[in-house]
Amino acid sequence: MPKPWSVIESVSEGDYRVFHLRRDRALNPRTGTAHDFFVLESPDWVNVIPVTPDRKVVMVRQYRHGIKEYTLEIPGGIIDPEDGDPGQAALRELREETGYWSEDLRHLGTVQAQPALQNNLCHTFLALNTVRVAEPSPDSGEDLNVVTIPLEEIPGRIRADEISHGLVLAAFYWLELWNREQR
Amino acid sequence: MPKPWSVIESVSEGDYRVFHLRRDRALNPRTGTAHDFFVLESPDWVNVIPVTPDRKVVMVRQYRHGIKEYTLEIPGGIIDPEDGDPGQAALRELREETGYWSEDLRHLGTVQAQPALQNNLCHTFLALNTVRVAEPSPDSGEDLNVVTIPLEEIPGRIRADEISHGLVLAAFYWLELWNREQR
Repeated sequence: MPKPWSVIESVSEGDYRVFHLRRDRALNPRTGTAHDFFVLESPDWVNVIPVTPDRKVVMVRQYRHGIKEYTLEIPGGIIDPEDGDPGQAALRELREETGYWSEDLRHLGTVQAQPALQNNLCHTFLALNTVRVAEPSPDSGEDLNVVTIPLEEIPGRIRADEISHGLVLAAFYWLELWNREQR
Repeated sequence: MPKPWSVIESVSEGDYRVFHLRRDRALNPRTGTAHDFFVLESPDWVNVIPVTPDRKVVMVRQYRHGIKEYTLEIPGGIIDPEDGDPGQAALRELREETGYWSEDLRHLGTVQAQPALQNNLCHTFLALNTVRVAEPSPDSGEDLNVVTIPLEEIPGRIRADEISHGLVLAAFYWLELWNREQR
């Protein structure tokens, strides 16, 4: 096993609303040389694959500033302090972004957002028997459209580059692995 | 379709070696209110699933500063200006991190690293008939161990949380979709 790196300096580089930036100076145990690492600290994220009784996935289309393009994603976001636990955060994001709700939430898996650069995890859920209960109520940083896609079309939409958010692909892979275990 | 957001201010927040941080102030087309977005600008990333003739995946175990834990990942990294194209970058990372090489590289798919926060993409490759040709030559920011894992064990390793890097899961999902098309 490689050894852990010892951190010889750790400095705050500022707060940027959705993350806090930190610089760590650490010693490479293999070479003994010092190296700077920048880490984005933020609360864990959640995302949720909401499936309706007729096997459609409730998804959101939105404009994303990082890539300056539209994406097709599953609902998700940052866990708020008031959420209590990741499952409650997933249900809140589902309701806010889509107006849908589920009484049958399953934890699929938890992945690292970007373990070289970020300290947080993304908790991925499946919401079964998802139904529309209200109008969406997006926050002031959001403008999104709700679309429903038949579950069996998801692999084709990925291959066609219509769904290309890394963490969303990870969620659908977790769903496939989960489905195999149910058989 | 939701409308694009107009950027009314764009400010550099500094250079952090592996990314440049930018703040954009943009108007929500739905509400007309201004909102700050922070974007990490960096070159595209690559990753590669190297498969040996006896169907083992060449992986790397390393200490990751973001999560302060060990991960089990496929080789990958940032595209260097000298690489020319993503495929060359994938082969370079494969050789540097593991000492393996392949003459049969296939592009599986391209995913967004984190489209809300980052401007870059991650190009995912499959390297077939991967063979060991040299000692690994990691750079000064790396300390890693090379391990080979039978391809059919990958889903179980994901379910056991041994492989939990979001972009690595996305790569293995792309491989499954690619395999289905070959049948």
